Amino acid sequence: MGFKIGLLGLGTVGTGVSEVFANPLGRHPLLQEMKIVKVGVRSLEKIRSLSLPPALLITDLEAIVHDPAIDIVVEVMGGLEPARSLILAAIAQGKHVVTANKAVIARHGAEIFAAATQAGVYVMIEAAVAGGIPVIQPLKESLGANRIHTLMGILNGTTNYILTQMQQSGAAFTDVLAEAQQLGYAEADPTADVDGLDAGDKIAILAALAFGGRIDLEQVHREGIRQVSVADINYARNLGFVIKLLAIAKLSPGTSTTADTSFPSQLEVRVHPTLVPLEHPLASVNDVFNALLIEADPLGQVMFLGPGAGAGPTASAVVADLINIAALLKTGLVANDPETPRIHPLLACSHEQYCTIAPMANLVTRFYARFLTKDHPGVIGKLGTVFGDHGVSLESVVQTGVKAGLAEIVVVTHHVQEGNFHHALSEIRSLAAIDSIPSMLRVL
Amino acid sequence: MGFKIGLLGLGTVGTGVSEVFANPLGRHPLLQEMKIVKVGVRSLEKIRSLSLPPALLITDLEAIVHDPAIDIVVEVMGGLEPARSLILAAIAQGKHVVTANKAVIARHGAEIFAAATQAGVYVMIEAAVAGGIPVIQPLKESLGANRIHTLMGILNGTTNYILTQMQQSGAAFTDVLAEAQQLGYAEADPTADVDGLDAGDKIAILAALAFGGRIDLEQVHREGIRQVSVADINYARNLGFVIKLLAIAKLSPGTSTTADTSFPSQLEVRVHPTLVPLEHPLASVNDVFNALLIEADPLGQVMFLGPGAGAGPTASAVVADLINIAALLKTGLVANDPETPRIHPLLACSHEQYCTIAPMANLVTRFYARFLTKDHPGVIGKLGTVFGDHGVSLESVVQTGVKAGLAEIVVVTHHVQEGNFHHALSEIRSLAAIDSIPSMLRVL
Repeated sequence: MGFKIGLLGLGTVGTGVSEVFANPLGRHPLLQEMKIVKVGVRSLEKIRSLSLPPALLITDLEAIVHDPAIDIVVEVMGGLEPARSLILAAIAQGKHVVTANKAVIARHGAEIFAAATQAGVYVMIEAAVAGGIPVIQPLKESLGANRIHTLMGILNGTTNYILTQMQQSGAAFTDVLAEAQQLGYAEADPTADVDGLDAGDKIAILAALAFGGRIDLEQVHREGIRQVSVADINYARNLGFVIKLLAIAKLSPGTSTTADTSFPSQLEVRVHPTLVPLEHPLASVNDVFNALLIEADPLGQVMFLGPGAGAGPTASAVVADLINIAALLKTGLVANDPETPRIHPLLACSHEQYCTIAPMANLVTRFYARFLTKDHPGVIGKLGTVFGDHGVSLESVVQTGVKAGLAEIVVVTHHVQEGNFHHALSEIRSLAAIDSIPSMLRVL
Repeated sequence: MGFKIGLLGLGTVGTGVSEVFANPLGRHPLLQEMKIVKVGVRSLEKIRSLSLPPALLITDLEAIVHDPAIDIVVEVMGGLEPARSLILAAIAQGKHVVTANKAVIARHGAEIFAAATQAGVYVMIEAAVAGGIPVIQPLKESLGANRIHTLMGILNGTTNYILTQMQQSGAAFTDVLAEAQQLGYAEADPTADVDGLDAGDKIAILAALAFGGRIDLEQVHREGIRQVSVADINYARNLGFVIKLLAIAKLSPGTSTTADTSFPSQLEVRVHPTLVPLEHPLASVNDVFNALLIEADPLGQVMFLGPGAGAGPTASAVVADLINIAALLKTGLVANDPETPRIHPLLACSHEQYCTIAPMANLVTRFYARFLTKDHPGVIGKLGTVFGDHGVSLESVVQTGVKAGLAEIVVVTHHVQEGNFHHALSEIRSLAAIDSIPSMLRVL
């Protein structure tokens, strides 16, 4: 007896999963009722750090998802295709799926979960967000009593490492990025990480679970950290902030959480570098660590913190999902009758509506902006007048020394509407006294 | 249709649970398939903040646990008896139980879980430890792939509040305790909190889940914070530490986690005030917040942080357990046939062995001690000699000014065996130069 697993991919995560299974003692006893029976790889010749029986490895991934002996397919190959097609094929064959693939789930989750619901199988995604930190499970199960107001997380380890290094060493973004690439913390093409796309995928997945509706990824504002300079990090520190790439999903203000509906009317879903107050719990989450802060009623604030990537942490999440499925299979919860599959309601996913995403122009937040100005007298007065004309009230204005004929002015606003702030910036940009506006960041 | 709940107790937590059910919209849809049908209270006359139909309230608690219409009993009355007997009676009647009662579970868990296993019912205890923070669930489900090495937590909000206040205001323990009692953060009889008993109950419960064996509470070293003085807090800060009441459960060194068994040979389970390095993740957990840090293979370190007590957070955990049970009942996982109950293996609890708890004398840790000495010349030399004779090597020795004819010497050791350290202290206590040893604390 035992449940048979087909593994798609034997990179970092696949190797981590294999190692857990190779050495199950001291782990959950259900591990010993599961077995990896096929491993799909790109090349049989590649030298690998762990020794699997050669007979397990095959290059024909389609054969795995169609193998009638296999109960559960684990997709840890990454990328959009053929991952998406293989997941859909596995579901169509009545197999349960565990995936670590945030990109596929964020883009094709609707299609995949609809197919899974129809087939009466589970698609489990704990490993897709925040690596080894359990974040999917609490949103599905442990926090069910709550109305969730806010998800706020550091969900990308690469950018958090880069920002931490910039903060600690004073090195520039491009230098730290190059170092991170050497260390293997950043990929050769760092776009998905440093431009906020990866964090955007993850917050979209979490928001769908927390708020009970699908999220159109195209409407998620994703802004990366390329514009963050050491100058900004230093100004921020003097003002009592640290700069973090935050992924945020929250009910728009005015969206009543006690409304007579279980579906929120409007959500903010956004990723951008943010000035975080030093005393905030997310401010001290450094290096490649990830964290998710959840605000909910009646719970209050809860935070989960841990390693957001890597072979071991991600394998921990993949295997947790496998144990969950095995527990249900073992108890016979999944009926063999495809007409009436009995799926555990907390582990199923069947959102049909899309959440309405509020436009960024409506966002109400504080802003930080840095201006390089020609050293005209009265330039602060001019800035203040334009901001005032657009309803933007200022919390602090700091002018620093003149360098190469240019003075630097750093402004932090009170809470203002983003649209108004941008209108003010456009007008300021056209002032004769303004040389440039090197950075514009939101403040928590 | 719907599952019927009998609530034992309508204090802070019971009221919190009732409020969640009174207002289910925006929460998990399964809430609307459950209903509180009876509420056991001590007095029908008491004025309550929430309005429940008077017909729900009864004073006969036995009638609730014997009511054939009730599917799930929620015990939120606290105390050992009659809570224990009522839980056992409910189980004997085939009812599932959700309890927030750490004292009963830590002392009578073996009896209660054995009865539950026999009856084929669930006993769910998320609310018993760390309030609204999901800590039971990860240990049961999300971390199943791992070998857990260490649990380390701040599990008592009252003492964490007191220590935080002492740290921030410099006020003495007794004054802060009196203030905490006025604020409702400490009880009139604060023994269970300030003497480490409550944290001991909680770490025993967590250790049983993490290490897969029962814990004999009598063998858990429980040491409270009465001996912690502002002087110690200030010395600790100068040395780079903050003092926290930590609850720790870990594999004893030498207990191989890769051993050929799934059962650890020896555990350390202990509660004591501890000097925590300022950069440690637990160091910045302040006020009434709780946190649990878990170290596991292959996951690494993960930390959960949030409100450890209070109506809302505890209700969040109670209702999460109710939703879990309702999900399983709804899918028919619990068979009606009492001969072959199909219990979900991750939610059942069936430890039969007891873990072996290592004696404290074998503990290897660092120590902090403060000595008041008569200002004899060479007293540091004498201390050093005695410590050396007992194999205790010193990391730092600081002598401060003389006050009322007594000098104060603060010592931090390297890692030493606790038994050796105590032998050295006994000998030092008898030195003519030593007036007293006001404090002795462990260092993380």
